[in-house]
Amino acid sequence: MTQVFNFSAGPAMIPTAVLEQAQKELLNWQGQHTSVMEVSHRGKLFMELIAQAEQDFRKLYNIPKNYKVLFLQGGARGQFAAIPMNLMGKKGKALYLTSGHWSLTAAKEARLFCHVDEMNLLEVGDELKTGNLDFSDISPNYDYVHYCPNETISGVEIFELPKVGNTPLVADMSSTILSRKIDISQFGMIYAGAQKNLGPAGITIVIIREDLIGNARQETPSIWNYAVQAKSDSMINTPPTFAWYLCSLVFKYLLSQGGLKAIEQRNQDKAKLLYDYLDNSTFYHNNVAKKNRSLMNVTFTTGNDELNSQFIAQALENGLQALKGHKVLGGMRASIYNAMPIEGVQALITFMEKFEKQNQ
Amino acid sequence: MTQVFNFSAGPAMIPTAVLEQAQKELLNWQGQHTSVMEVSHRGKLFMELIAQAEQDFRKLYNIPKNYKVLFLQGGARGQFAAIPMNLMGKKGKALYLTSGHWSLTAAKEARLFCHVDEMNLLEVGDELKTGNLDFSDISPNYDYVHYCPNETISGVEIFELPKVGNTPLVADMSSTILSRKIDISQFGMIYAGAQKNLGPAGITIVIIREDLIGNARQETPSIWNYAVQAKSDSMINTPPTFAWYLCSLVFKYLLSQGGLKAIEQRNQDKAKLLYDYLDNSTFYHNNVAKKNRSLMNVTFTTGNDELNSQFIAQALENGLQALKGHKVLGGMRASIYNAMPIEGVQALITFMEKFEKQNQ
Repeated sequence: MTQVFNFSAGPAMIPTAVLEQAQKELLNWQGQHTSVMEVSHRGKLFMELIAQAEQDFRKLYNIPKNYKVLFLQGGARGQFAAIPMNLMGKKGKALYLTSGHWSLTAAKEARLFCHVDEMNLLEVGDELKTGNLDFSDISPNYDYVHYCPNETISGVEIFELPKVGNTPLVADMSSTILSRKIDISQFGMIYAGAQKNLGPAGITIVIIREDLIGNARQETPSIWNYAVQAKSDSMINTPPTFAWYLCSLVFKYLLSQGGLKAIEQRNQDKAKLLYDYLDNSTFYHNNVAKKNRSLMNVTFTTGNDELNSQFIAQALENGLQALKGHKVLGGMRASIYNAMPIEGVQALITFMEKFEKQNQ
Repeated sequence: MTQVFNFSAGPAMIPTAVLEQAQKELLNWQGQHTSVMEVSHRGKLFMELIAQAEQDFRKLYNIPKNYKVLFLQGGARGQFAAIPMNLMGKKGKALYLTSGHWSLTAAKEARLFCHVDEMNLLEVGDELKTGNLDFSDISPNYDYVHYCPNETISGVEIFELPKVGNTPLVADMSSTILSRKIDISQFGMIYAGAQKNLGPAGITIVIIREDLIGNARQETPSIWNYAVQAKSDSMINTPPTFAWYLCSLVFKYLLSQGGLKAIEQRNQDKAKLLYDYLDNSTFYHNNVAKKNRSLMNVTFTTGNDELNSQFIAQALENGLQALKGHKVLGGMRASIYNAMPIEGVQALITFMEKFEKQNQ
């Protein structure tokens, strides 16, 4: 088989070992002679699967006991709506810290349901304001503070934790979940669409502190009412069982690889390799401040649209897929999530060197 | 391989030919050396897939040009909430015709978002009121009329079309979609979770008349705003790509089988076989009026809980899976959706005869 590396920003690579297992048992899961996607979600075997999946996920993240884990439908964008429905309280407003496309989109959607104040964290040129993530003076005015620790499109990652006092901090971790260790207890709620680091598109994980559950407004769809779903094992309706199954395999795989400590080290190694190369090149440029360079999404450009197009096309011919940057930004983007092996980054750099020599 | 037949009510059987194709190309879709679930939903190949899927689905149902087809997340229960958000208008109320668990649940959820009037279609014993599906006198008072043509739990199917004049008729067809020919033009909107006749759990199809799109209230999540999704090829956020792909294979499969005319005939043959057997038995009972017996979900009981339990356990030992009735009703239920071959029904009857002889 041709060796290809898929740098898609999402839906993204899934570990090959996981796909191979899914392939092997696609028509005969657990010796049942049926597919995992053909069995009742309330059956014994599937209930065991989800219990194990939650246990493994909790182990990976060391999730404290006073947090619930929910597996929902609708993607992170569904949560953009569900969060104000569930978390808006007496203060009647939420603070959205913005750092790029996704945090802005979250704020825009929340505004359909509540009063939103926005605060931009970015300097011009995607450079984060330094030492300015202390919002504890104003956070008591808000029911929650929302931010997006990794902006997939621009490749901006916020490693520092915003200070918000006792106000719940809510984080869209769609493109950074399970990529490095975090202290869950610092968050009120974390959520993520699965299609980057967890599994296939179509399932969304919510980690939420128990005391934040139970205050949803009446007009909350039951599938997004955290209290309803927490009471129903995330099964108030038929869940996306195959996606859940694949997530369970990914969790097992990550544990077998040494858990988050090992995964984080590997992600740092991969990112360092690529950023070091970019920093030593005068041909390619990355515009993100060093302290905010994403471990997951590495953006770069030649500064020339025509050359960028040639780069993307020739890379594809060399088995390096999906390197085109998001349309709002242009240029190139290499998404190097957990499932991307270091060999993929090495192959990319080898190609970049070759392309640079041919075109500089 | 052991021959098993899976009578699960949902997630339910998927055609074996579809699963085999999915298995074959799980790690190498379209010669890309990646899985279909690892590619961008906005990429050329996936966009071609969804265009073909819509074309095939339209062909199967002969969907008129003034209807949009949307592929959404959140299941039918998500639509229970989305429908009043999108369709509630100046009249400020909706009429829900109820005939069992699911139509009642839809009404309950809608009541979170609007004024709902309910009208029960059932006589005692799951027998429909005869000749009484004309609501055209009261329907002008409502923004829409909702019903559920097939109640999965009780096995009650409504073959007659409720008369509602010019008021949009909205139907939850989760457990009857693509099982028989229908005249789409008689409906304002049809919706269905995929996990019975369309594909795996995690994707929901909406067929909606264009003039009903565009009146959503402000507080509508964008992933369920029909106008937003219609403008975005159902991709306002990352869709459940693998589920969509499987649906596309199911559509192709149904067309290859002769389309809905052939499928309907097969479903009628399967149901007739089972109901004829039940009618000739004094040991098993089905409580649904003949004119409302579901083609998809056949409920029956021995009238004895202990015997029912033995039946379910022994059937399982004989490769007949998931025959336990829904917990709210007890007894047995054989779900015989499109993917169930007639051999499955024959095997069930053979076992029923044997069990009857041993226990009567």
